Amino acid sequence: MRDHGLPIRDDDVVGAGGGASRSAVSRRALLGFVGAGAAVAATGGFAVGRAAAEPAAATATIAFTGAHQAGISTPVQDRLHFVALDVVTKDRARLKALLSEWTVAAERMTRGLEAAPDGAVGVSPEAPPLDTGEALGLSASRLSITVGFGPSLFDDRFGLAGKRPEALVDLPRFAGDVLDPDRSNGDICLQACADDPQVAVHAIRNLVRIGFGVVRVRYSQLGFGKTSSTTPNEQTPRNMFGFKDGTANIAGNDANTLDEHVWVQPADDPAWMVGGSYAVTRRIRMQIETWDRTSLGEQEAITGRTKGEGAPIGQQREFDPVVLDKLDVTAHVRLAHPDSNAGARLLRRGYSFTDGSDELGRLDAGLFFIAYQRDPREQFIPIQTQLAANDGLNEYLRHTGSGIWAMPPGVAAGESWGQELFA
Amino acid sequence: MRDHGLPIRDDDVVGAGGGASRSAVSRRALLGFVGAGAAVAATGGFAVGRAAAEPAAATATIAFTGAHQAGISTPVQDRLHFVALDVVTKDRARLKALLSEWTVAAERMTRGLEAAPDGAVGVSPEAPPLDTGEALGLSASRLSITVGFGPSLFDDRFGLAGKRPEALVDLPRFAGDVLDPDRSNGDICLQACADDPQVAVHAIRNLVRIGFGVVRVRYSQLGFGKTSSTTPNEQTPRNMFGFKDGTANIAGNDANTLDEHVWVQPADDPAWMVGGSYAVTRRIRMQIETWDRTSLGEQEAITGRTKGEGAPIGQQREFDPVVLDKLDVTAHVRLAHPDSNAGARLLRRGYSFTDGSDELGRLDAGLFFIAYQRDPREQFIPIQTQLAANDGLNEYLRHTGSGIWAMPPGVAAGESWGQELFA
Repeated sequence: MRDHGLPIRDDDVVGAGGGASRSAVSRRALLGFVGAGAAVAATGGFAVGRAAAEPAAATATIAFTGAHQAGISTPVQDRLHFVALDVVTKDRARLKALLSEWTVAAERMTRGLEAAPDGAVGVSPEAPPLDTGEALGLSASRLSITVGFGPSLFDDRFGLAGKRPEALVDLPRFAGDVLDPDRSNGDICLQACADDPQVAVHAIRNLVRIGFGVVRVRYSQLGFGKTSSTTPNEQTPRNMFGFKDGTANIAGNDANTLDEHVWVQPADDPAWMVGGSYAVTRRIRMQIETWDRTSLGEQEAITGRTKGEGAPIGQQREFDPVVLDKLDVTAHVRLAHPDSNAGARLLRRGYSFTDGSDELGRLDAGLFFIAYQRDPREQFIPIQTQLAANDGLNEYLRHTGSGIWAMPPGVAAGESWGQELFA
Repeated sequence: MRDHGLPIRDDDVVGAGGGASRSAVSRRALLGFVGAGAAVAATGGFAVGRAAAEPAAATATIAFTGAHQAGISTPVQDRLHFVALDVVTKDRARLKALLSEWTVAAERMTRGLEAAPDGAVGVSPEAPPLDTGEALGLSASRLSITVGFGPSLFDDRFGLAGKRPEALVDLPRFAGDVLDPDRSNGDICLQACADDPQVAVHAIRNLVRIGFGVVRVRYSQLGFGKTSSTTPNEQTPRNMFGFKDGTANIAGNDANTLDEHVWVQPADDPAWMVGGSYAVTRRIRMQIETWDRTSLGEQEAITGRTKGEGAPIGQQREFDPVVLDKLDVTAHVRLAHPDSNAGARLLRRGYSFTDGSDELGRLDAGLFFIAYQRDPREQFIPIQTQLAANDGLNEYLRHTGSGIWAMPPGVAAGESWGQELFA
């Protein structure tokens, strides 16, 4: 069992609770908060701070350290900034050092602190600030920062070829894919989620800044609204088709299901991924103008749920069981259901996006799909193969970006991202 | 004096307070809420509902009706969805009818209602829904929807050439402008602001849907964080340079200053614009990677304020007076100050954006600048002419989009947007 306690450093004289004011608080007050947060995290079985008890509290934090990375099974925040990066150095040591530097800065920011002590106002007026400053005065906003490694990182540049997990396959081409290479793949990904988008943007921007000369941005995606929840009894969010999404998602407190479907287990290879997970990201453009001119009956039949209540077709309430035979054979819910996929499940954590408009005057809107799983070969790939071939929703969807990522396990205090990978 | 009361219609059987649940409430309860909202609005001197007293309350609404449109002097919400539209019909009557239909839907949505009664679940399964549904279950989130008319609307298509305000000039080309025509101009603009971005996106998406065949999207811009406030004593937001912005903004409750600098007055032409305002919108890309490698001292000298406190250079506290002689002659605050511009002021209401990344791997981030004023010829144009020529910040800025808009006065219950323009 790792030490899940939060690190305490002497430079942390700012309120870790991330209240509206970042004025200095006494070290005693800080310790008091940290103690309480650690206690909650310890009882949850996974790394959650006060957010588990108070999901709407603006001052809540989600613990950065733990057996698993935050941002997967922890409560889903409202906003996303996701970035895929390419490594531009061939220097293994510089990359390893960056991962270490990132870990320190990320852990600080998830507590509502600047990326470095006195970051924004600088150690010296002659030097660039070590924090860009736009989150000064904002709370931690349940920020989580989650790192992942793409297949291309395991080529011959950094001596990692022998460490590539077999489950980190190159995704096949699915029927209907219209992928933009500039919005696909990448060596490293960073997923920042927070209830305040400025906090998420600040986190990504500062990690990119720290990585200057080592990594560069390949693509970047903001998500304005979560479309799935991992918190039972929370109101189910709606996607850009206006339907409740993720009703049957894996709950963040369901340890058995997480072990079976999400976390890489000790029996799985490689050892450095045990406690981690695999993410698949898909930028899915939704043809909302066409959808909006489709009848309600057609929308419901294609989706497999009612629009208002979100009940499975043929049932009355949202959480009534799905009866597959009552759904059209091309209904999305039917095709994605575990019973149609040999029991395979995904932990979904996607976000709605709107990125301006296209040349035809249509809103460039849709879903930035993020799904976590124990093995994409058994989960996302067979599920998506079936959906791509038969899903009635395909007429309204275009997959324009794609990525697959090995998300390593969490770190304990003092450990660094990728420590075991580079060992 | 117009009637500022909220309209009550029999179809409104859903909670107007926009609570977490939209279950039906009694008409008595609805009337009780509306009465309270109207009372607050009446005492404020401008159209503000409960938001003025409780800016953070998720259930707050901002009154749609009033002498002035909401979304200008009313408290600034956290998120923006702005859209510029081109009219694709030449049928004046269809355009006028759309403005009327829009008014009804916009007023409803600002109360947390669907765009039409029973919109999402449809009057019939055979018909497309009259609301796209993704805001079901969300509160009103202080939504405001503000309409404006661009210079091109006053060409020969709709018989409006004689109604074009003299103040609605075509903006000159400013030094350094690198405007993208596809992100500039437009016949009509809609500015939706809300504390929940899904509520703002839903509003724009439904108005675009209603306008199908009459208008099409020219460009669309999401803003994730406000950079200015109109509420005195509220924490001043920070822009993507990490600096407090809009410290000296015009306050939404300063009626005299609003009359002098923002609202078109009875002595001004044309009559249909009295009580309205002119908006200038500029999409300003900020070269944040270059900025982030600039020393703190240089950043502060260029801006004219300290980064931490936001005090004018040479002063101690944020709200200390700006002493122009203590600032560099190229400092932004000095050049934008009313004392450097014959007393001209702007009501700023801009938002930070991040729209993915560019081909060089830099974040496409910046400020979607929105400024309201009584006459752009006396305010934005001379101020921006001076800034474009001399502002030290220019090295880090690129103006990539531009628009100018006549924002008509507010409507009373039963009136429609553009009613006086088309009379």
